[in-house]
Amino acid sequence: MNERTTADLENLRGLIDGVDQQLIHLLRKRLDLVAQVGAVKHGAGLPIYAPQREAAMLAKRRGEAEKMNVSPQLIEDILRRLMRESYQNEKDVGFKQVKPDLGHVVVIGGEGQLGGLFSQMLTLSGYQVKSLDKEDWERADSLLAGAGLVIVTVPIQITCDLIATKLTQLPKSCILADLTSIKSAPMTAMLEAHSGPVLGLHPMFGPDVGSLAKQVVVVCNGRKPEAYQWLLEQITIWGARLVEAEPQQHDKSMQLVQAMRHFSSFVYGLNLCKESADIETLLQFSSPIYRLELAMVGRLFAQSPELYADIIFSQRESIAVISDYLENYTQALFLLKSGDREGFIEQFKVVSQWFGDFAPQFQKESRAMLQSVNDMKTD
Amino acid sequence: MNERTTADLENLRGLIDGVDQQLIHLLRKRLDLVAQVGAVKHGAGLPIYAPQREAAMLAKRRGEAEKMNVSPQLIEDILRRLMRESYQNEKDVGFKQVKPDLGHVVVIGGEGQLGGLFSQMLTLSGYQVKSLDKEDWERADSLLAGAGLVIVTVPIQITCDLIATKLTQLPKSCILADLTSIKSAPMTAMLEAHSGPVLGLHPMFGPDVGSLAKQVVVVCNGRKPEAYQWLLEQITIWGARLVEAEPQQHDKSMQLVQAMRHFSSFVYGLNLCKESADIETLLQFSSPIYRLELAMVGRLFAQSPELYADIIFSQRESIAVISDYLENYTQALFLLKSGDREGFIEQFKVVSQWFGDFAPQFQKESRAMLQSVNDMKTD
Repeated sequence: MNERTTADLENLRGLIDGVDQQLIHLLRKRLDLVAQVGAVKHGAGLPIYAPQREAAMLAKRRGEAEKMNVSPQLIEDILRRLMRESYQNEKDVGFKQVKPDLGHVVVIGGEGQLGGLFSQMLTLSGYQVKSLDKEDWERADSLLAGAGLVIVTVPIQITCDLIATKLTQLPKSCILADLTSIKSAPMTAMLEAHSGPVLGLHPMFGPDVGSLAKQVVVVCNGRKPEAYQWLLEQITIWGARLVEAEPQQHDKSMQLVQAMRHFSSFVYGLNLCKESADIETLLQFSSPIYRLELAMVGRLFAQSPELYADIIFSQRESIAVISDYLENYTQALFLLKSGDREGFIEQFKVVSQWFGDFAPQFQKESRAMLQSVNDMKTD
Repeated sequence: MNERTTADLENLRGLIDGVDQQLIHLLRKRLDLVAQVGAVKHGAGLPIYAPQREAAMLAKRRGEAEKMNVSPQLIEDILRRLMRESYQNEKDVGFKQVKPDLGHVVVIGGEGQLGGLFSQMLTLSGYQVKSLDKEDWERADSLLAGAGLVIVTVPIQITCDLIATKLTQLPKSCILADLTSIKSAPMTAMLEAHSGPVLGLHPMFGPDVGSLAKQVVVVCNGRKPEAYQWLLEQITIWGARLVEAEPQQHDKSMQLVQAMRHFSSFVYGLNLCKESADIETLLQFSSPIYRLELAMVGRLFAQSPELYADIIFSQRESIAVISDYLENYTQALFLLKSGDREGFIEQFKVVSQWFGDFAPQFQKESRAMLQSVNDMKTD
C-alpha cells in the first residue's frame, strides 16, 4: 500500500469514527425516549408490544429512508434490532399490575428456569411471589393458604402426579395454572384436583429469551375463564401473543413441532458423533445455511438431557409420528439406492406443491436469516 | 386511554420521529464514507473484507458504547448490518482487475444462476466475459479461441462428460476451472482433458447472496498453480475467504454437509406433507426455533428439484452416510418405543461430550440467530 492510499484511508476512517460517535449518541437518545414511552404505557397499563403501531412506524421510516436514498430494509432491520433492546429494557421499569387485590402467587418449581422467568415477570408487575420447591413441601400448607394463583412448572413426568396428590385442597377461588409443554393430561389432572378456576399455559419459548415481546403463549381454557382474564391481560402487557387452543389439538401439533423435530436433531447429532465427523473441518467448509443447521443441532446438546427426554417421552402418540418419519426416510433412501433420480424429483414436486405459497415465503424468510448469520462471521 | 396519556405518547413519538430522521441521515453519511473507502481500496486492489480491521473497529466501538451506557452488543449488531449494506454497495464501484492481460473469459453455463453471478463479478472487475450455453456449441471454437480462462458450471451429471468431450482443445496457457459442488471427478476430468493450468473451485453459497464478503470458496489445486494465483487474489478482492482442500477430503465432508443434510430435510418435508400437517396451525404454535427450522425446510422446496437431485445423487458414497443415519434413527426409536428414558439420556450425554466446547458455542450462536428471527416477527 503506498503512502497516499494509507493517508486517504486514515482520513476516511477518522471521519467514520466521528459518525459512529454520533450514532452511539443517537442510539442512547432513542432508547431513552422509548423508555419514557414505556413508563407512560406502564402507568396506563398498555401492552409493551403493539404490532400495528410498530408496522405503521416501520412503513413510515421505510418511506423516509427511500427518499434519502437509504435502503428501506436497512432502516427496518436496524429499528427492529433497536426495538428488541427497548423491549429488554422494559424490565427495568416493571409492568402495570392488573390485579392488585390478588393475594400472593405460588410458583411450584419456581427454582426451575421457566418458573424463575415467570416469577420474575410477576414480581416486576407488583405481585408477591412465593416459590415452592422439592424441599418446601413440609410447609406447603402455609405457603398455599390464601394464594390467589398457583402455577405448576415441574418436570412433565411428575406434573400430573403432583397435581393429583398435593393440590386438592387449594382455596376455592384460587386459580390453578400450569406451564407444561403438553396440555391434555395436566389439564385433566388440574380439573379433577381443583374445583375453582383452571388454566393451561404453554409458553412457546425457552427461558433464555431476553423479553416476552412477540413470544407466543398457548392458552387452554379450563374452568371459569372470567376469573383469570386478568392473568391473560397481564401476559399481554409483558408483550406476549396469546394463541388459544384445545388441549388435544395443541398436543397433536406438538408431536410434530417438538417431539419429532427434537428427535431428529438428536439423531443427527448422534450420527455425526458416530461418524466421528471433525466439527472443525465441517465448519471450515460450511456455508451459512449449514452453519446455522449445525448450530441448531449443537444447541440441543448444550441443554439438559432430562428436559429433552421429558419432551420426547411425554406423549406416547409421538412414537407414531416419529415412526412415520422413519418409514418415509426408508422409502426415500430406496429411491437413492436404486438411482431413481426421476422418482426423487417427482416426490420433490409433490411436496413443493403441498408447501404452496409457503415455500417462497420461507425462502425469503430464510434468506434474511442466513444474511444475519453471515453478518456474525468473524473470520 | 385518557387524554393526558395520549398527549404524552404523541409528544414522545414526535421526538422519536426526529431522532429517526437524524439516524437515517447518519446512515447515509456512513454509507457514503465507506463507499469512499471502497473506492480507495479499489484503486489499490485491496480486499473489501478485512477481518482483523473489522474486529478491531468493532472492539473500539463496543468500548465507546459502554462508556455511553449503550449495550456493546447493540452497536456491534447495528454496525455488522451496516457493513453488509456497504459490502453489497461495493458492486456499484466495481473491483480492481488483477490480470488485465488475461484475454477473455468463457463461462460454460453462464446462464445458470451461479454462472451468472461469477460472470457478473468478473465483468465488474474489468474482464471480458463470454457465455457458452447449450445452444452455443456450434460456435464453441470461436468462443474458446484465445480464452485466458474457461469456467465450467453446468449440472453435475453432465460436467465430467462435457469436459472430456468438448474441452480437449483449449489453448495451452488457458486456465480450466470448474464450480461443481463435488471435486474429485471433475478435477480428474479436467486434468485429463487439458494439459495447461487446472483449478477446482466450490463456492459454498447460493447464487442469492448479495455480496461475496465473508463467503467461503473451496480451492482444489490442480496443475500449475502459479498461473492462476491472480484468480485466487481476484476472488479475495471480492471479499470471499479461500479454504484449500484435497478433492477427496472435500467430497467426504460434502457427504455430511450437503447430501445427508439435504436428504433429511427433504424427508422432513415429505413427512409433513404425508401427515397432512396444517402449516398455518404449525406456524401459529411455533417458537422461533421451530419457525426457523420450518423455514429452512420450506426453503428447499422453493428451489429446483433437479439441483437437489444432482447434489444428493452425485456421490454414490453419500448412500453410506445416509444409510448410517437411518440405522441410528432406528436404534434411537427403539429406545423410545421401549420407554428407555435412561438409555436416551445416556446417549445424549455421549453426544454432548463429543460436541465438547462446540455445544455451548453453538447455543450462544443460535441464541443470537433466534433473536434475529424474533425481531422479524410482524404479528
